[in-house]
Amino acid sequence: MNLIIDVGNTRVKAAVFETNTVKEILVFKKLRIISELKKITNKFSISASIISSVANISENKRQKIDDLLHPIFLNSETKVPFNNLYKTPTTLGVDRIALASVAIEKYPKKNVLIIDAGTCITFDFINNKKEYLGGAISPGVSMRYKSLNTFTSKLPLLKPTEFNNFVGVDTNSSIHSGIVNGVCNEIDGVINQYKDKYQDLTVVLTGGDTYFLAKQLKSGIFAHPNFVLEGLHTILIYNLAND
Amino acid sequence: MNLIIDVGNTRVKAAVFETNTVKEILVFKKLRIISELKKITNKFSISASIISSVANISENKRQKIDDLLHPIFLNSETKVPFNNLYKTPTTLGVDRIALASVAIEKYPKKNVLIIDAGTCITFDFINNKKEYLGGAISPGVSMRYKSLNTFTSKLPLLKPTEFNNFVGVDTNSSIHSGIVNGVCNEIDGVINQYKDKYQDLTVVLTGGDTYFLAKQLKSGIFAHPNFVLEGLHTILIYNLAND
Repeated sequence: MNLIIDVGNTRVKAAVFETNTVKEILVFKKLRIISELKKITNKFSISASIISSVANISENKRQKIDDLLHPIFLNSETKVPFNNLYKTPTTLGVDRIALASVAIEKYPKKNVLIIDAGTCITFDFINNKKEYLGGAISPGVSMRYKSLNTFTSKLPLLKPTEFNNFVGVDTNSSIHSGIVNGVCNEIDGVINQYKDKYQDLTVVLTGGDTYFLAKQLKSGIFAHPNFVLEGLHTILIYNLAND
Repeated sequence: MNLIIDVGNTRVKAAVFETNTVKEILVFKKLRIISELKKITNKFSISASIISSVANISENKRQKIDDLLHPIFLNSETKVPFNNLYKTPTTLGVDRIALASVAIEKYPKKNVLIIDAGTCITFDFINNKKEYLGGAISPGVSMRYKSLNTFTSKLPLLKPTEFNNFVGVDTNSSIHSGIVNGVCNEIDGVINQYKDKYQDLTVVLTGGDTYFLAKQLKSGIFAHPNFVLEGLHTILIYNLAND
């Protein structure tokens, strides 16, 4: 079995894969990473692993993880199954590298736009020649709610809520309309820009807000909430085969 | 001459009107409000004034302003030339009250959508029966740049910049595309939603980002960068006539 470890700023997602299928996904606090990984190695027979981190991991913890699993530590030097045309390839986030990798595997010879709706909303485009071209980064749904409250003196902090009418009739519904309806218009608009330029576009929606947004978008999309984990698995398999 | 005073969180905009024309606009720090207003009253012969504030003004300063100008202090009790159908009329921001007032004067018997692109982007809709229905509030352009930097660990703080290609090819152009192209898609999408529902829609764009956004939008809009000041003047005239 293979172990995929995706380290966020405060939480870690770990996925155990058997061939190409997710057997189990575990989520735990970053602080508990060593003890949780030990539990996983006790429970499952892990033969290969990969770790991807958007946050820094201390040298001490890194050594302990290395001793336990001998994983691939994903960075911009890791071999990937696509041609990276990003002008500053070393600054391309590990999540975006994973997304591009799995897009090529799941939708070969297609133009693919991947929208990852999490802390940020990232747009990533891979053409039908396995070339990663780039994309966009904009604030995520929860970040927009937080920013209205943090950067103004009078607006409340609300929880993401579906809107029934884009004409908000009080402060709360105006905020829900501004953010949720706003994000949907933004995503639908960007999808249409890519569709105008690239024929036969496949659109994938992933990230924590996948299902919240999917039902409110006009565009047809494929929902893959765990596309980053699947992408890390793709990279692991690619590196095992090309080692 | 009439004096219009619009108090923001840190800055004050003051406009001197002669009949219906802006003669001079002054911008100064909120801290210096009393001394600056004294200068204005020394320079111009002010016969009537109105003050609108999104921030709190201390009782002491309020008294000094009252002694100097005897202005109308705009709040939700002030008489306005439209019918407010907002469910919580006392929470409708003073800026939005001003915008609705001037929309009715400049575009009578029209369905009007006003987009104020400042700290926040507010959408306000007034129908052809002088009824204010509501709208939306979403984060402004600069706020989106600030939020990406504040609420993530790795993204830089950039200045708003026009994008040439919606496919960002490095971190900076990805952020510019995500924010600027994102905001434009959001605004164009919302305008189309109103157009689908309300015939003969007039769209006004105002606020600090008016010209930055106007040239990048697909929709036809009327640019009125000082629509809030003009709206405050409309309310002042309305109250003088109906006193």
